[in-house]
Amino acid sequence: MECLSATKMFSQSYLQRISFHGFIFIPTRKISCSSITPKPSSQLQRNSPISQPDHKLTALRQLFSTPNFNIDAYIIPSQDAHQSEFIADCYARRSYISGFTGSAGTAVVTKDKAALWTDGRYFLQAEQQLTSGWILMRAGNLGVPTTSEWLNNVMAPGSRIGIDPFLFSSNAADELKEALSEKNHKLVFLYDNNLVDEIWKLSRPKPPKKHIRVHDLKYAGLDVPSKLSFLRAELNDAGSSAIVVSMLDEIAWLLNLRGSDVPHSPVMYAYLVVEIDEAKLFIDDAKITPEVMRYLKNSGIDLRPYESILPEVESLAAKGACLWLDSSSVSAAITDTYKGACNKYMGTAGVASKNKRVLPNGIEDQSCGSTAVYKSSPISLAKAVKNEAELQGMCGSHLRDAAALAQFWTWLENKISNGAILTEVDAVDKLLEFRSRQDGFVDTSFDTISASGANGAIIHYKPEPNSCSTIDPEKLFLLDSGAQYIDGTTDVTRTVHFGEPSSWQKECFTRVLQGHIALDQAIFPENYPGFVLDAFARSSLWKIGLDYRHGTGHGVGAALNVHEGPQSISFRFGNMTPLLKGMVVSNEPGYYEDHAFGIRIENLLYVKEADTPNRFGGIGYFGFEKLTFVPIQIKLVDFSLLSAAEIDWLNGYHKQVWEKVSPLLDGAARQWLWDNTRPSR
Amino acid sequence: MECLSATKMFSQSYLQRISFHGFIFIPTRKISCSSITPKPSSQLQRNSPISQPDHKLTALRQLFSTPNFNIDAYIIPSQDAHQSEFIADCYARRSYISGFTGSAGTAVVTKDKAALWTDGRYFLQAEQQLTSGWILMRAGNLGVPTTSEWLNNVMAPGSRIGIDPFLFSSNAADELKEALSEKNHKLVFLYDNNLVDEIWKLSRPKPPKKHIRVHDLKYAGLDVPSKLSFLRAELNDAGSSAIVVSMLDEIAWLLNLRGSDVPHSPVMYAYLVVEIDEAKLFIDDAKITPEVMRYLKNSGIDLRPYESILPEVESLAAKGACLWLDSSSVSAAITDTYKGACNKYMGTAGVASKNKRVLPNGIEDQSCGSTAVYKSSPISLAKAVKNEAELQGMCGSHLRDAAALAQFWTWLENKISNGAILTEVDAVDKLLEFRSRQDGFVDTSFDTISASGANGAIIHYKPEPNSCSTIDPEKLFLLDSGAQYIDGTTDVTRTVHFGEPSSWQKECFTRVLQGHIALDQAIFPENYPGFVLDAFARSSLWKIGLDYRHGTGHGVGAALNVHEGPQSISFRFGNMTPLLKGMVVSNEPGYYEDHAFGIRIENLLYVKEADTPNRFGGIGYFGFEKLTFVPIQIKLVDFSLLSAAEIDWLNGYHKQVWEKVSPLLDGAARQWLWDNTRPSR
Repeated sequence: MECLSATKMFSQSYLQRISFHGFIFIPTRKISCSSITPKPSSQLQRNSPISQPDHKLTALRQLFSTPNFNIDAYIIPSQDAHQSEFIADCYARRSYISGFTGSAGTAVVTKDKAALWTDGRYFLQAEQQLTSGWILMRAGNLGVPTTSEWLNNVMAPGSRIGIDPFLFSSNAADELKEALSEKNHKLVFLYDNNLVDEIWKLSRPKPPKKHIRVHDLKYAGLDVPSKLSFLRAELNDAGSSAIVVSMLDEIAWLLNLRGSDVPHSPVMYAYLVVEIDEAKLFIDDAKITPEVMRYLKNSGIDLRPYESILPEVESLAAKGACLWLDSSSVSAAITDTYKGACNKYMGTAGVASKNKRVLPNGIEDQSCGSTAVYKSSPISLAKAVKNEAELQGMCGSHLRDAAALAQFWTWLENKISNGAILTEVDAVDKLLEFRSRQDGFVDTSFDTISASGANGAIIHYKPEPNSCSTIDPEKLFLLDSGAQYIDGTTDVTRTVHFGEPSSWQKECFTRVLQGHIALDQAIFPENYPGFVLDAFARSSLWKIGLDYRHGTGHGVGAALNVHEGPQSISFRFGNMTPLLKGMVVSNEPGYYEDHAFGIRIENLLYVKEADTPNRFGGIGYFGFEKLTFVPIQIKLVDFSLLSAAEIDWLNGYHKQVWEKVSPLLDGAARQWLWDNTRPSR
Repeated sequence: MECLSATKMFSQSYLQRISFHGFIFIPTRKISCSSITPKPSSQLQRNSPISQPDHKLTALRQLFSTPNFNIDAYIIPSQDAHQSEFIADCYARRSYISGFTGSAGTAVVTKDKAALWTDGRYFLQAEQQLTSGWILMRAGNLGVPTTSEWLNNVMAPGSRIGIDPFLFSSNAADELKEALSEKNHKLVFLYDNNLVDEIWKLSRPKPPKKHIRVHDLKYAGLDVPSKLSFLRAELNDAGSSAIVVSMLDEIAWLLNLRGSDVPHSPVMYAYLVVEIDEAKLFIDDAKITPEVMRYLKNSGIDLRPYESILPEVESLAAKGACLWLDSSSVSAAITDTYKGACNKYMGTAGVASKNKRVLPNGIEDQSCGSTAVYKSSPISLAKAVKNEAELQGMCGSHLRDAAALAQFWTWLENKISNGAILTEVDAVDKLLEFRSRQDGFVDTSFDTISASGANGAIIHYKPEPNSCSTIDPEKLFLLDSGAQYIDGTTDVTRTVHFGEPSSWQKECFTRVLQGHIALDQAIFPENYPGFVLDAFARSSLWKIGLDYRHGTGHGVGAALNVHEGPQSISFRFGNMTPLLKGMVVSNEPGYYEDHAFGIRIENLLYVKEADTPNRFGGIGYFGFEKLTFVPIQIKLVDFSLLSAAEIDWLNGYHKQVWEKVSPLLDGAARQWLWDNTRPSR
């Protein structure tokens, strides 16, 4: 799945226009209205009724002046408290208050105005869903102010702007506070009540309570004690004595647990606090089966209620713990509580003596009082570097996924050639059906992008049952999809034509393919950041003045989130994270022609040591190994543009596809795979 | 010429170990002992006598305790007051005091110790040249402290460390001050006397006084009033009212003047102050001919003595001017004087009223008091973007330079094949002879790197008459050279073999050539920084685990410095300067095998709009046009590694070389050119 932004990348200036080299990037955090149990999109119904939005606004505004709150405006972002890309329905507060159900948006309600910011993907939808009480802010359009610019403009100086401090990362809240201080506004943290929840009340969906499961060690590869021991060594090195983890995939990875609280991501809502000698999981215990309870106990993990995270942070401060906080993901509620508590307890004799830590060299360290270490979470990088077992799970699940795709393409080509009229959503549903039959299938890993013709040019297109197109046999068809299996996560895009592609479409497809091959084949010195390779994937498009407005590769979790950091392959040159052995990245160059077609070719790869005959500088040289084995449509290739080496790559890839995937197929699908993996030229 | 570092890049932490991705970069600022008049290297004599260095140290230390100075240590860097790459002999103070004549080094003298830092290129030379009173600090070696670390270690806390504030950029001095404050040391600026000059006295070479000349408008393309008007618009936009320019090439470019104060760079020692309504050149008037005097008068430039720059800065502060200072190039003496004067004059009624400026919109601006605007000099970028006339001059001079090289290679191959024993310096001298005969020749643009066999692996090798090798017909020979002409500056490297290269040498050469071709042929969107293209030049080496430890391309001046910023093509990813239409860059991938051989293939290119059939995003797509037309030795190419497109490139290039350069040749050289530009395969 093409990732317009890493999850954390936009936490600080969410929905602000981010312009770089003339491109505009838009966050992809999504609010999904689908339940976690996979079901065909056609059966999905919209939540978030849009009736009587004015009553909601009235009710919200009435709360402003209650003594508890005493605010002049309230900001409602899209996020949950964990900066998740996919969130549970009960946290879709912006969607509820505004009626706008798009994945990205920020609502701001003042005593007499209500405004909603969203980006170009959603202008039309927002126009339809917002009632007259709302102003639509077309973020990214010329002259449209940011949220804070607007507040600075419409509010009398010195106003009190309320937020739920759980829904803003510490960095985002700091940035907002700074921006609002220009007009002397005060950013007010309302800890105890989310004002939208107050008026949502009974109609608010219940927080998810599904059971969590243990992620088998044969897929995880590393047990919890080993991971905790690594983490504690990191804490020690950083001079901190505890860490508060709030990213859900980091908790799932560290504890080898999987949940089903949100669609697409096998995670559960929780916080984790790891100290040198103990670890506590803050979670609704209704999700804990006796088996998981035993497992956690054996792993030395204590359970605490999800809601008690702030008291825990306060008590950590009280005992002089030096917290490691990743301020790009941890909420403002947590850092603010910690700072407040530190100020409260600082200087008391009891605390001072507890501040003393004995360093590994035996020296008593008093340097670490109640001062946080603000650094990227050490779990993020550790999680990104897959171990052997994780890679094996990724390989296995990718082959089963490829088998499901072969069955799907066989079915679709057959239907189309027989003149069946199918919608984009029909394709989504049928693909889900094939995938569901595969061993270990859990869920889709994101909303399938099934796009015929011009819809393919909408990079994050999501077909809806009532409005989607039929699949036009005379147009390009782009399918970007993926699944969660118990042993791995997939994400693959193929673009095909059921009829006769134009020579222009073939040229564009071939140049995208050349970029795909160039990145796939790249060899590079160890410690190189991914952005160095981005140009390889674009070079062949650039030659004729074409390009694409998204990154080329994102990280992918092992039976975890389909988008994960910290690495990326992108023209966003700021990400200096080196590509390390074992990291999984997508390779997905594309080309999009507005109102005409979209092309994308995406495989997942993992970084491995390249077997180069030399090792200049005494360092390792790295390359990629493919995870995805799905045929690339030969019909769309203009062979006159390819070099001999590129043709060899294509034939070699298809040979591998046949060898690896055919054992999982029979009948028509096996024949289809044979037909579509024959060497060319 | 391969540029290990842009001039400014190392001004802040000169000679400190700069390690990035495991590579170590070393500044290339050079102290040359040769006079500016080109003469064969074999006739050059060493200045900087190394006799009795202890007497010098004794004399220097005696000055420490005089009441004027009262310091405990003195730092003597390599630089002149203008952060020049090549400097005049009279400014080679570090060389004089230490006896070490290498191009890079910093000397530090305390009351009882003397230490000299240099890098790996010069360890051997420094060992030979330093007397027993000196400690050699092998910068970059494990455990070797930086200058400030060492001072913090050996000096009693609260010591007074003296420097000549003209010889440190403002940034470098700030950095040093900060580092020394750790031990409470005070960095003392000794304005009035350079202590080395005090003891150097009569034997010190006189400052250069050669006449400067007007750089003809037909080469400059833009007259001084136009350039001044551009600069003043920049000042206005930045809210500043004057700029102090200290980079010598910026002054030469802005005033369309050329000098001969230093070797290789056609510049003259001067400062330039440009205000909104006047401009002053601070220069020794002995260099000004009546013609130049008239020219300057007509251009509205007043003359002032070189030494009066600080009083001028003080008077600018007194009248409330808001200075634009590029703190990476302007000396600490200038910024410190300005800040001091601002504090002195601030708040007086007279100044306050003068601070008021009328902005273009008619509003009176009081925001700009005596506060400097610290930004990169606007001249740097303007100078880097060549106009039509400059490009024409570059093209013309490159063809004449190519003719000289053809004559040289004809001569050299003939000599070698006839069994002559030639040294590397013989080649340097003969090449200078051929170049000197070309129209408009002025000087070499840097010390020629003429390197046989293993010497080729020493990236900045400079053959010396007494110690250089003979040219071994059985080994690779690397020649990196360039010249200053009145209309342009050249820089070209070719690697050849006079006998039979090994297949390994051919493979390495071919992969370097593939990198050269890939960069030459690159097309990229406008506004892309150069580092994005760096990987294109390395990719083919990376495939077999090879690499090179220098950047791929540096900027080149038009009849100016052979190394200029701000653009570069390098794996130093911090340089975000986009490649703009008209910029000149070198394309010089290489491969070096220690103690064996070195390979580099270097052309100069300029950035031009590519004629792409599409312009995705409505922007321009850029590519390169070649300036250098010198045959690449076919004997070293392993054609089995080249793609059809790469072979086409090589044949197409040689066709151009023949067409463009043959009209300038006759006799044996013309035949040589014919023989060496025949198509292959």
